[in-house]
Amino acid sequence: MLVVQKYGGTSVGDLDRIANVANRVAKAREEGKDLVVVVSAMSGETNKLIDYAHHFSDNPSKKEMDMLLSSGERVTAALLAIALQAKGYDAVAMTGRQAGIVTDNTHTYARIEKIDPTAMQNAIKEGKIVIVAGFQGINKDGSVTTLGRGGSDLSAVALAGALHADQCEIYSDVDGIYTTDPRIEPKAKKLDTISYDEMLEMSSLGAKVLQNRSVELAKKLGVKLYAKSSFSDNEGTLITEESENMEEVLVSGVVLDKNQARVTLRGVADRPGIAAEIFSKLADENINVDMIIQNVGTDGLTNLGFTVPQSELENAKKVVNSFDHDIQGADYDENVCKVSVVGVGMKSHAGVAAKAFTVLADSNINIQMISTSEIKVSMIIDEKYGELAIRALHEAYELDK
Amino acid sequence: MLVVQKYGGTSVGDLDRIANVANRVAKAREEGKDLVVVVSAMSGETNKLIDYAHHFSDNPSKKEMDMLLSSGERVTAALLAIALQAKGYDAVAMTGRQAGIVTDNTHTYARIEKIDPTAMQNAIKEGKIVIVAGFQGINKDGSVTTLGRGGSDLSAVALAGALHADQCEIYSDVDGIYTTDPRIEPKAKKLDTISYDEMLEMSSLGAKVLQNRSVELAKKLGVKLYAKSSFSDNEGTLITEESENMEEVLVSGVVLDKNQARVTLRGVADRPGIAAEIFSKLADENINVDMIIQNVGTDGLTNLGFTVPQSELENAKKVVNSFDHDIQGADYDENVCKVSVVGVGMKSHAGVAAKAFTVLADSNINIQMISTSEIKVSMIIDEKYGELAIRALHEAYELDK
Repeated sequence: MLVVQKYGGTSVGDLDRIANVANRVAKAREEGKDLVVVVSAMSGETNKLIDYAHHFSDNPSKKEMDMLLSSGERVTAALLAIALQAKGYDAVAMTGRQAGIVTDNTHTYARIEKIDPTAMQNAIKEGKIVIVAGFQGINKDGSVTTLGRGGSDLSAVALAGALHADQCEIYSDVDGIYTTDPRIEPKAKKLDTISYDEMLEMSSLGAKVLQNRSVELAKKLGVKLYAKSSFSDNEGTLITEESENMEEVLVSGVVLDKNQARVTLRGVADRPGIAAEIFSKLADENINVDMIIQNVGTDGLTNLGFTVPQSELENAKKVVNSFDHDIQGADYDENVCKVSVVGVGMKSHAGVAAKAFTVLADSNINIQMISTSEIKVSMIIDEKYGELAIRALHEAYELDK
Repeated sequence: MLVVQKYGGTSVGDLDRIANVANRVAKAREEGKDLVVVVSAMSGETNKLIDYAHHFSDNPSKKEMDMLLSSGERVTAALLAIALQAKGYDAVAMTGRQAGIVTDNTHTYARIEKIDPTAMQNAIKEGKIVIVAGFQGINKDGSVTTLGRGGSDLSAVALAGALHADQCEIYSDVDGIYTTDPRIEPKAKKLDTISYDEMLEMSSLGAKVLQNRSVELAKKLGVKLYAKSSFSDNEGTLITEESENMEEVLVSGVVLDKNQARVTLRGVADRPGIAAEIFSKLADENINVDMIIQNVGTDGLTNLGFTVPQSELENAKKVVNSFDHDIQGADYDENVCKVSVVGVGMKSHAGVAAKAFTVLADSNINIQMISTSEIKVSMIIDEKYGELAIRALHEAYELDK
């Protein structure tokens, strides 16, 4: 059985924690597993190096940032290999390059183009535990590249795919995916299983555990992901393909996203292309639009609503102002939040959305915007009711059972 | 004019010092020089990483140590490139691998086998300042290797050779090579020029400035070396081929080495091979023998004397004891030191050695052992007279003039 394990920055945050990881890896080895272990930089290291760079420049060259930041993972990889060797295990540390990871030329946010797993496979054949510095590769010019924040998850998933590993275990300080944020609803339950798509829709819940890019790649490559804690022996959550079994569960989780601001454009000319123009301009300005709502208009005019991260509202206002000939007016509201109900079960079960609306109505919470997908219902409500809504929905869908 | 500069750990010891180095590099650039700049890890970083490794193992794998330790120089190289870019200069950071440095497979003490300077040359042609992480290369298997302590000097000299640079400037916190240690003789004078061979013979003086391996390589490649301070604009010392001019100076410096212990084997059987056996055994035990003295014997017996570093005396005793059938007895003395008079001028001028003996005799200092080479006279004396001897010799050879 070949397992790829990935330990995040908190899990390797100091020397004692690296020793703890060495113990966990050794235990898996004693269970007879072949192992490739991907590690992040010790927590704080990457931020320290970024601060160093910003001492010299507000906008340091991305190529040099990649050389700078990739050093942190190398340190952890070498230390973990040394720790395992000291325990009598044959381990070898590899950089992203040595592990065969080749990326495109996009420094600081490179995409993995191909992986040549030969060196890893040879080491595994020789009985070695392979430790790989996460977050990094090289491009075709031989320059060091990094994969963006959370890139070590991506390294792990990609290596698991290239090696046809039986599973990929992502270790952090959280022991899995919960039905909702336990800080909001103490009755939140850890899920045993969740589908890739549900995980993607619950990204704001899972961001601390797994980056969306990694989940997408795992889905594409069919890699079975486990989100586990490196600080406990709990089972964690399996993220995998949907199974029929899963659809029996209507709803997997409810999610609160407080980083939302609402924009409503009133009296938008109901002509083809106007929405495209507005959203193209927003994209050009690197404004991340989340929900978009447009109703059928009357009198050739329609209302168009969308949400953006709160920090991007000012920039969004500027874009909207540039369309003042095409709209009658605009409303902005920073004091909103998004509550989402996620579950593959709702594909085949009517009434999930209706129940959400009823629950909020029963709590006298006004729903300002609604957006639905096959496996998610999202609602924009007044920010101050966010936690209340989450608890009400969590109970209504019996997620604590 | 192509110049290779190398800045040591103290010179890049913190962010302000890296900024200072960026200023110096920029100044050289403004003077129209093409530049390749080799940097060490920020001072303290390498020791920190070694401590980390020793947390897990007393004897960590050398391969993993190389991956671990090579990260420090990469950080400095990236930061210096970023600092230069922020000042408006086109700079590019390269790892040892990217700079084309290929070594043998000896981890932690690799020898440079070849350098492919194409990437550096292309960058220089594009008008870029090339910043190279010192101390490191890769071997033919693609593993990261390091060149041993002081290896960044070696990187700089080797790159200067491969690039046919006009000169190689080694920056540290010392502004050149002195006629003797200024802490012992405040009248010590900085030398403008010194030959490679004198520099090698004065290694214990120059060790803080330049490693012997680098001087040897510079000599072999004919690289003109400048030892300079990164904290002043002083001229520094040029280390180069002997010139006729140099030979007018009888003596370049006097050197004290307190880390010496004397071993005298009495009544050694005067048969071929016995010395070879003893010194082979000492070499097998990794004991560094410095001076070796053997006189013509009488009655088929001879006395054999040698010196070792004080820390290796106990191991040397064990080796000597294993030869107790071949010798009548052995004396050991830890309380000795070596004073050396170095100068290419003594090749062509008689009497330099005689003067040294006279000076010590005038100071009532007994000379226990003498060893001479073409450009050096070394004497083992009682440790407590070391500083006195240095000052007397410094004055006698008029080194303060």
